[in-house]
Amino acid sequence: MDAGRLSLNQITLNSLDLPAAVAACERHEIGSIAVWRDKIAAVGLNRAAALVRSAGLRVSSVCRGGMFTDPAADPAAVRDDNRRAVEEAAALEADALVLVCGPLLDRDLAGARARVRDGIADLLPHARAAGVRLAVEPLHPMMIGVRSVVSTLAQALDLSDELGGGPGEEVGVIVDAYHVWWDPDLAAQIARAGTRVAGYHVSDWLPETSDLLLDRGMMGDGLIDLPHLSGLVADAGFAGPVEVEILSERWWAEDPDDVARLLRKRFEEFV
Amino acid sequence: MDAGRLSLNQITLNSLDLPAAVAACERHEIGSIAVWRDKIAAVGLNRAAALVRSAGLRVSSVCRGGMFTDPAADPAAVRDDNRRAVEEAAALEADALVLVCGPLLDRDLAGARARVRDGIADLLPHARAAGVRLAVEPLHPMMIGVRSVVSTLAQALDLSDELGGGPGEEVGVIVDAYHVWWDPDLAAQIARAGTRVAGYHVSDWLPETSDLLLDRGMMGDGLIDLPHLSGLVADAGFAGPVEVEILSERWWAEDPDDVARLLRKRFEEFV
Repeated sequence: MDAGRLSLNQITLNSLDLPAAVAACERHEIGSIAVWRDKIAAVGLNRAAALVRSAGLRVSSVCRGGMFTDPAADPAAVRDDNRRAVEEAAALEADALVLVCGPLLDRDLAGARARVRDGIADLLPHARAAGVRLAVEPLHPMMIGVRSVVSTLAQALDLSDELGGGPGEEVGVIVDAYHVWWDPDLAAQIARAGTRVAGYHVSDWLPETSDLLLDRGMMGDGLIDLPHLSGLVADAGFAGPVEVEILSERWWAEDPDDVARLLRKRFEEFV
Repeated sequence: MDAGRLSLNQITLNSLDLPAAVAACERHEIGSIAVWRDKIAAVGLNRAAALVRSAGLRVSSVCRGGMFTDPAADPAAVRDDNRRAVEEAAALEADALVLVCGPLLDRDLAGARARVRDGIADLLPHARAAGVRLAVEPLHPMMIGVRSVVSTLAQALDLSDELGGGPGEEVGVIVDAYHVWWDPDLAAQIARAGTRVAGYHVSDWLPETSDLLLDRGMMGDGLIDLPHLSGLVADAGFAGPVEVEILSERWWAEDPDDVARLLRKRFEEFV
């Protein structure tokens, strides 16, 4: 894919703070960035917004709101944190606020999923008022106990259907290749998503994955047919920045400039 | 669940050879066993059949045929191995031959899935002639690169539909709790399966799973609502033996008799 579409998801160069990540984007001619909330908090929201603005960076997403599932959590605290996430996404003029919809903490999977629906319904008016697009990211089913009870694109779209909203106002979805590539129903669900595709993330699935969270591969090193997936997402109408999001202890140990050079090259060759 | 339904999947006590596993079933009053092919090979098919017969054990399944996906494999060798698996299942009068449908070895997922379909179609007449039920086991999506390109119950049932056959002659499916519990479409797909449910396997999903293959939990130690799943399987009409199948380096390190006692207790309490 043309490198003009490339967005650096900040966690890919996790050792860098936001000023350093912005500088890396400038150095490597990357036009978009996805910003993590812990990195925003470290510099303050105003400075974060000024940094990306003065660098002329488009913010493809803010990562992340959600985490609605803990039955023991204070609902007011969860709500407040998600509203702050919306405000951060608005201040950064992000294309979307990514929602990671919480791990399963007991055996009541249906209950956890109902809390996700209720949590998003509660947040939605606030997001609309702020002009922020919410985007549910289904995560790989192996992450259900640590990150997300939303496990498939079909499930995310069912949620979006249920929560309603007119064109441009519906809850969007993130298509992250790593999370959904295995799904036999993938092509149909991406087509169904259409303009609700609010983001497209790439990395690769290593044949011998050694860790459920931190062993994602560099594009081209694994089993995912990314050009095929990119075609499906394009056919659905998505033309925005494409985030490279690689959570990997192996790549985090390398020099960030080497990683940035490589991911740009692999993006052009394998996405 | 009543322990009268319990079947010991032999890999749960992986250190035991077949004679020792049969003796463990007798000692712990377990009426059924699922036999692995490497353990059959170690004693020879005739002796394996004599052992389970003289102990009065029902063989809930033989594990496993399949592995159709390697584009570099000799098709005749794959076919021969699967035919031998059918003969072993017939000799042991197993309820089903479990098919694990091969890992993805390149980026051609559609091609691998087509090889699975063709491989089963080729094996099916042989299985019918031998009176052996073939049962496709969808494996957890995280196992796509090491074990199976069949990742959901819906996909397995689509395969079964495509391969046809009258009542009792269709390709069956295995519902393994560990592999399918996360699926938002699970209840609908188990109902759709109906009498095609040819086996039901239990273990548990540990919240902090540390290995993609060998860290399954003992029933009651994890997040799966097994009684709910047992109800769905019962509603579909399945009343056969329920296999406890725990691939776990943690449990393999324990005394097999201690594990057998515990799994019997947990089966009664948590399944």
